[in-house]
Amino acid sequence: MKLLVLNGPNINFLGIREKGIYGTQDYTYLEKLLKDKAAAEGHALEIFQSNCEGALIDKIQEAYHSGVEGIIINPGAFTHYSYAVRDALASVQIPVIEVHISNVHKREEFRHVSVTAPVCVGQVVGLGLPGYALAMDYLTGHWNSRE
Amino acid sequence: MKLLVLNGPNINFLGIREKGIYGTQDYTYLEKLLKDKAAAEGHALEIFQSNCEGALIDKIQEAYHSGVEGIIINPGAFTHYSYAVRDALASVQIPVIEVHISNVHKREEFRHVSVTAPVCVGQVVGLGLPGYALAMDYLTGHWNSRE
Amino acid sequence: MKLLVLNGPNINFLGIREKGIYGTQDYTYLEKLLKDKAAAEGHALEIFQSNCEGALIDKIQEAYHSGVEGIIINPGAFTHYSYAVRDALASVQIPVIEVHISNVHKREEFRHVSVTAPVCVGQVVGLGLPGYALAMDYLTGHWNSRE
Amino acid sequence: MKLLVLNGPNINFLGIREKGIYGTQDYTYLEKLLKDKAAAEGHALEIFQSNCEGALIDKIQEAYHSGVEGIIINPGAFTHYSYAVRDALASVQIPVIEVHISNVHKREEFRHVSVTAPVCVGQVVGLGLPGYALAMDYLTGHWNSRE
Amino acid sequence: MKLLVLNGPNINFLGIREKGIYGTQDYTYLEKLLKDKAAAEGHALEIFQSNCEGALIDKIQEAYHSGVEGIIINPGAFTHYSYAVRDALASVQIPVIEVHISNVHKREEFRHVSVTAPVCVGQVVGLGLPGYALAMDYLTGHWNSRE
Amino acid sequence: MKLLVLNGPNINFLGIREKGIYGTQDYTYLEKLLKDKAAAEGHALEIFQSNCEGALIDKIQEAYHSGVEGIIINPGAFTHYSYAVRDALASVQIPVIEVHISNVHKREEFRHVSVTAPVCVGQVVGLGLPGYALAMDYLTGHWNSRE
Amino acid sequence: MKLLVLNGPNINFLGIREKGIYGTQDYTYLEKLLKDKAAAEGHALEIFQSNCEGALIDKIQEAYHSGVEGIIINPGAFTHYSYAVRDALASVQIPVIEVHISNVHKREEFRHVSVTAPVCVGQVVGLGLPGYALAMDYLTGHWNSRE
Amino acid sequence: MKLLVLNGPNINFLGIREKGIYGTQDYTYLEKLLKDKAAAEGHALEIFQSNCEGALIDKIQEAYHSGVEGIIINPGAFTHYSYAVRDALASVQIPVIEVHISNVHKREEFRHVSVTAPVCVGQVVGLGLPGYALAMDYLTGHWNSRE
Amino acid sequence: MKLLVLNGPNINFLGIREKGIYGTQDYTYLEKLLKDKAAAEGHALEIFQSNCEGALIDKIQEAYHSGVEGIIINPGAFTHYSYAVRDALASVQIPVIEVHISNVHKREEFRHVSVTAPVCVGQVVGLGLPGYALAMDYLTGHWNSRE
Amino acid sequence: MKLLVLNGPNINFLGIREKGIYGTQDYTYLEKLLKDKAAAEGHALEIFQSNCEGALIDKIQEAYHSGVEGIIINPGAFTHYSYAVRDALASVQIPVIEVHISNVHKREEFRHVSVTAPVCVGQVVGLGLPGYALAMDYLTGHWNSRE
Amino acid sequence: MKLLVLNGPNINFLGIREKGIYGTQDYTYLEKLLKDKAAAEGHALEIFQSNCEGALIDKIQEAYHSGVEGIIINPGAFTHYSYAVRDALASVQIPVIEVHISNVHKREEFRHVSVTAPVCVGQVVGLGLPGYALAMDYLTGHWNSRE
Amino acid sequence: MKLLVLNGPNINFLGIREKGIYGTQDYTYLEKLLKDKAAAEGHALEIFQSNCEGALIDKIQEAYHSGVEGIIINPGAFTHYSYAVRDALASVQIPVIEVHISNVHKREEFRHVSVTAPVCVGQVVGLGLPGYALAMDYLTGHWNSRE
Repeated sequence: MKLLVLNGPNINFLGIREKGIYGTQDYTYLEKLLKDKAAAEGHALEIFQSNCEGALIDKIQEAYHSGVEGIIINPGAFTHYSYAVRDALASVQIPVIEVHISNVHKREEFRHVSVTAPVCVGQVVGLGLPGYALAMDYLTGHWNSRE
Repeated sequence: MKLLVLNGPNINFLGIREKGIYGTQDYTYLEKLLKDKAAAEGHALEIFQSNCEGALIDKIQEAYHSGVEGIIINPGAFTHYSYAVRDALASVQIPVIEVHISNVHKREEFRHVSVTAPVCVGQVVGLGLPGYALAMDYLTGHWNSRE
Repeated sequence: MKLLVLNGPNINFLGIREKGIYGTQDYTYLEKLLKDKAAAEGHALEIFQSNCEGALIDKIQEAYHSGVEGIIINPGAFTHYSYAVRDALASVQIPVIEVHISNVHKREEFRHVSVTAPVCVGQVVGLGLPGYALAMDYLTGHWNSRE
Repeated sequence: MKLLVLNGPNINFLGIREKGIYGTQDYTYLEKLLKDKAAAEGHALEIFQSNCEGALIDKIQEAYHSGVEGIIINPGAFTHYSYAVRDALASVQIPVIEVHISNVHKREEFRHVSVTAPVCVGQVVGLGLPGYALAMDYLTGHWNSRE
Repeated sequence: MKLLVLNGPNINFLGIREKGIYGTQDYTYLEKLLKDKAAAEGHALEIFQSNCEGALIDKIQEAYHSGVEGIIINPGAFTHYSYAVRDALASVQIPVIEVHISNVHKREEFRHVSVTAPVCVGQVVGLGLPGYALAMDYLTGHWNSRE
Repeated sequence: MKLLVLNGPNINFLGIREKGIYGTQDYTYLEKLLKDKAAAEGHALEIFQSNCEGALIDKIQEAYHSGVEGIIINPGAFTHYSYAVRDALASVQIPVIEVHISNVHKREEFRHVSVTAPVCVGQVVGLGLPGYALAMDYLTGHWNSRE
Repeated sequence: MKLLVLNGPNINFLGIREKGIYGTQDYTYLEKLLKDKAAAEGHALEIFQSNCEGALIDKIQEAYHSGVEGIIINPGAFTHYSYAVRDALASVQIPVIEVHISNVHKREEFRHVSVTAPVCVGQVVGLGLPGYALAMDYLTGHWNSRE
Repeated sequence: MKLLVLNGPNINFLGIREKGIYGTQDYTYLEKLLKDKAAAEGHALEIFQSNCEGALIDKIQEAYHSGVEGIIINPGAFTHYSYAVRDALASVQIPVIEVHISNVHKREEFRHVSVTAPVCVGQVVGLGLPGYALAMDYLTGHWNSRE
Repeated sequence: MKLLVLNGPNINFLGIREKGIYGTQDYTYLEKLLKDKAAAEGHALEIFQSNCEGALIDKIQEAYHSGVEGIIINPGAFTHYSYAVRDALASVQIPVIEVHISNVHKREEFRHVSVTAPVCVGQVVGLGLPGYALAMDYLTGHWNSRE
Repeated sequence: MKLLVLNGPNINFLGIREKGIYGTQDYTYLEKLLKDKAAAEGHALEIFQSNCEGALIDKIQEAYHSGVEGIIINPGAFTHYSYAVRDALASVQIPVIEVHISNVHKREEFRHVSVTAPVCVGQVVGLGLPGYALAMDYLTGHWNSRE
Repeated sequence: MKLLVLNGPNINFLGIREKGIYGTQDYTYLEKLLKDKAAAEGHALEIFQSNCEGALIDKIQEAYHSGVEGIIINPGAFTHYSYAVRDALASVQIPVIEVHISNVHKREEFRHVSVTAPVCVGQVVGLGLPGYALAMDYLTGHWNSRE
Repeated sequence: MKLLVLNGPNINFLGIREKGIYGTQDYTYLEKLLKDKAAAEGHALEIFQSNCEGALIDKIQEAYHSGVEGIIINPGAFTHYSYAVRDALASVQIPVIEVHISNVHKREEFRHVSVTAPVCVGQVVGLGLPGYALAMDYLTGHWNSRE
């Protein structure tokens, strides 16, 4: 299965940014975690991070053309105002899971609203870096019991 | 690990209730799915459903006394107004994951607000019945690559 | 025709509760009025009152299983916040008429909003105890001219 | 008993206007239904429709002078903003029942508010054309059991 | 004098629940404190706690029938949304004092609104367990100087 | 114990001002009531009233310098907008109880908000003149059973 | 001086309409009062009342063409929503005084907003029928001391 | 093609009304401009202006019966509150273009909302009198390159 | 008749303050205007200005004791937030007219709300300095025709 | 005449994106349509699309330096939040027409607000791809009758 | 240059008041800092503090008469509601800089709004006591490079 | 000391953009002013401007890695909605001062809110180009008296 993980602004500062909220593991760790998992499970995975809204939209449009079958996106702060990212996600007809590392509902008021969630399949919120892995399990159908 | 799955009002009408939103599998199917998975993975699991707010709170308090180590709750419509369930979850100091079968952000305005989420670890939203399984994987730590 | 009348919290205090608003007839009077009318018109009628939200939801679910053909509900104060009762009514696919004894639009601001009305066929508001009888006439189709 | 039925803007387009919402019967049908019922029950009934707010207010004032004993009004869209119609209804001290053919609570947000309801006795909402007949039964006291 | 103390959801978790907010004394301590005080002052006191809204309403209605002369209620989280409890308190015509252990005005926004306070005589807020005792002093008239 | 009672604007018009709300006892009566009680219980009590926000703040600051151990304040209308009084109370680190003679939650919307309550220990609301006495009992610790 | 008095919907029901609010004098009395005053002071005065928004706008436009030098308008309920009347008043460049017989600020929330006031010179509110006379004194410049 | 241009309240005061906003050309000029254009392009055009909401609705209903194929409406101030005009436009199933001479988004807050736009095909806003001509070009399909 | 004119903060800066809004006449002119008028009409008039809310309240209370029969108040900016001035006016049971020199409805949003108007008899708004004279005419009953 | 057409995020996905809303013609078709029309009418036209807010602003600033005489912009989702694009448009003093392909007033609430419209000459909304052509006709003055 | 520094309520409690927010230096330190700086730079400086709104307004008016050329004001809590101070500042036509010691945007919601800022030249926020010195540098023009 | 000045969108259009608001000096002037000042005072200064949100965030992250000791940012329109810039500033733990050339509180409503201010040390607002210099003085500690 062909998967794309998209990370929005400041996610690359994992391990630097508020550690009490985002944990101490850095962005390289996250990349390795997901790539190892995808490799172990036999999926093609690209990971892309940008601080630029336009670059993320370009990537979403490229995914449409390159036949990506599932997107996991952590839009970072764009979650709360980027109707442009929302429109991009809505236009490509690929299943999308929105992931937030921290529990946004415990934080500032403005983080309680997601303008992108209504065009996604669903959300995984507040489960840390494992949230990405669980979203991948959902997309790949590997969520049932493990022996 | 000792786990509790709590389902709020009308979740027992799965398979009867709006099938376009909640799917065609019934509540018995959900119970079996989770029990089989817990058994296969070696966890003790209780599942409890009630249409009564007070009964759910009583169950949360009982979990405190009986040493439950993780709660997965789908508060149903209580999600949107039951500060009493919220207070109960906050009082017991057990990790809680909130699950919604449908993507509440695609539905009526009132379903966009969760009064219980701020006292949970996080949420799994819109991923159907698998959402419960993924929440269980998070609590039990089984979210990494599967060989 | 098989009918169910559901009365929510404090409706059983008719005749005790603010008489200027709800009138001087007591709850027994209401029960007799509706039962006599149903008997005279040849309909099977059950009347159920509870102060407990969960008990009302249980009754609505039971109506689904027992083949009730029409529900008349006065949700009392639940009208204004019980999304759980709303979800229950929406799930059972039985025609529902919402009745309020007093004209809620003349009273406190919070009584102007009904969270249950959008899942009902319609409402009868402010017409006192006769409101129940008129709702019954609608469900049974007895609303045309009387000779 | 002397009764007046008032219909506001666009009600005369019944049977033309959104049929999924208002049904397929036309305005002539509604007039006949109510006139036949009034005749059969021995009441004097006038029916008046206008797209003009001022004409409706003039009619309400005329009702005061001509001794009308009950008004059934479907203010159409004026329901949601005509404080002038409200003031007229409040000034004449005649019992008024507000009727809406469709369930306004299922439709656009602006239709959830009635500025006229607080000066009426009550409302019948969403019960289609029978709603007028039921309002008439309330005003004439014919709401009890039918043999 | 015949008094009733009502405690809403989660109050029974005193001493377990957020100790920084509610203190370290447990619910048994509160019960003893109030019973001893009532006994010493010669009043009949019943104390009732429930996590269920309906059970609290049933108890309020029972108080009407059994001649209770004063109610002290800590509605817990129901304070903020239970119009059903409000309606019950309004219907029984017994003087009611609302008590909150913590200063709700220092806490989350949703705790700043009380839907029950408008139908009470008054409130005692933020004075800890002594708040119950002071409310009792008000109802029994023992608030003047002590020699 | 050294106590200060502060009364804000118009409290000196007790017995003149809306008697249906504030009762028929005048301000001299309130002063005597509290002074007698303080004397009987052995506390030093100063009572100060002003219609001027600045004078109240000056007095609060003076209390800091003169070693007052507890403040009972009825800020009158300043309750609803004087962030300056709020800041003064917050700055002096003396326990403060806010008292309102009437139940502000039964009155105009603007009286439902207290900008001063969040910096007080708590509130006594709607218990009439006894409210001051009960606040004093709380501060002095005399709230337990009376023999 | 050429003056126009415009009265909006339901003002012609003075003496019939809520007498506790609008007084017992009828509309004929108001007309005579103003006509006598204008005659005594040597001004040409036309008085026009309509329940129809369009008719009032037509009259305002006619005033532009006929050289009216001052308008006194009581827009009745149109005050609160008729942006069309507002636009008409703004377009004619004649000084306009808005008059309300009752003190709208003591009444329902919706009466606190005037959409027409921002295009008038000013308002006279709550001074009963004399309010019209005072507005006339302002326009004619007869407001100084009377010997 | 059979076209109808509808102008709402105060549009007939073009050239008199705020010239800085609406320009110096008068209403006769607008009528001639559109009639000449329609004649030159071979379309049947009726232009109707009224200050009365009811008259505009009557005209819209008449258009339904007389086979009008396209409506261009400048509802004037009715844009911002006339749900009755909205309902009329929605009921006739004729393509409607809403035109505003001035850029309403540069003006008062209340002019930013159009209650009629949601039932139109689209809007032309702020393009002065040419806006009507462009709307006509859209309806008649004459919008492509001109040689 | 014994009258009191009260002017709030910054009114003493008439003739200095924004002349485009408040005119070029200074405060001395206003005082002379009103005193001459009162003298000519045989009324006792006191005029008091203060920038201090407390001083204005003190004066209102003094008016109660000294038998003032009518108050004309221009609360200046206190109009928009001084619930303390409102409470003072409400407590003294003397007829009060609120005057604003400028048309507050043409100015900033915050000036559209008056917290004092609901406890006054009425308002005169936007009529400049003559507004005081007209208010005086109302209180003294001199509003009818002048020969 | 030198013209610039600017298209914001996702407009390049015409023909791919929600076809029920945006139609089946693709972005190449739109480019050709406008270029052919400009060529036929003798205007210089540049068309620029970007998913990046900054690139659009750079282009607007470049237009200032290169002497563009008219801008047609479809800001896509930036319409609803990009105050930066708004500021850019306001700074260059070139006439701008805002175009939306779909009728934004029929869609989600957030699409009803345009933060860019107040700095444009006007808007063409909901007229599909022809909307661009009509905007071009306005800028070039080609809006009068076509022979 | 003649300068005035105005400090509103509770600023005199610097060093006593919340030290985590306002620092440990006391009010005498602030006075000395500014006086020394003014003396060193050759400016006449008066510093005035009051807890009374009226006294601050009196001082602002006095500044008008005494020829003050620049005002630095920290209105304390009056920032958030004193339209009277705002009006005073607006009336005197002296350049005013608003200073806040703490970053009000990091604190309670009510501190985010300044009703006085719109009539000032600008603000210095959150820069501690140096904020006053920087405001002085702006007014005196000493903001360029220091050798 | 190592300093970074960041300018957001459209700031490079100084001297072109609304001169009445932003003054006549161009962007080159601002750069020279700050560079000369930094050089004279012995600080290393980089100035960076971009219309692209992502480029600004990249620069903020680069500042973290390159050891910048103080940031002065004028986020332009991003001030009002870029939670992404806010998150970037919050993540780097460098003292930041927000500067606005114009007094945003005198301008449109949307400019009154800063989403970036809560993560800065403070703001300098409305003091024109000198605002940058004053912010630099704060960061470098050069704010005391100048001889």
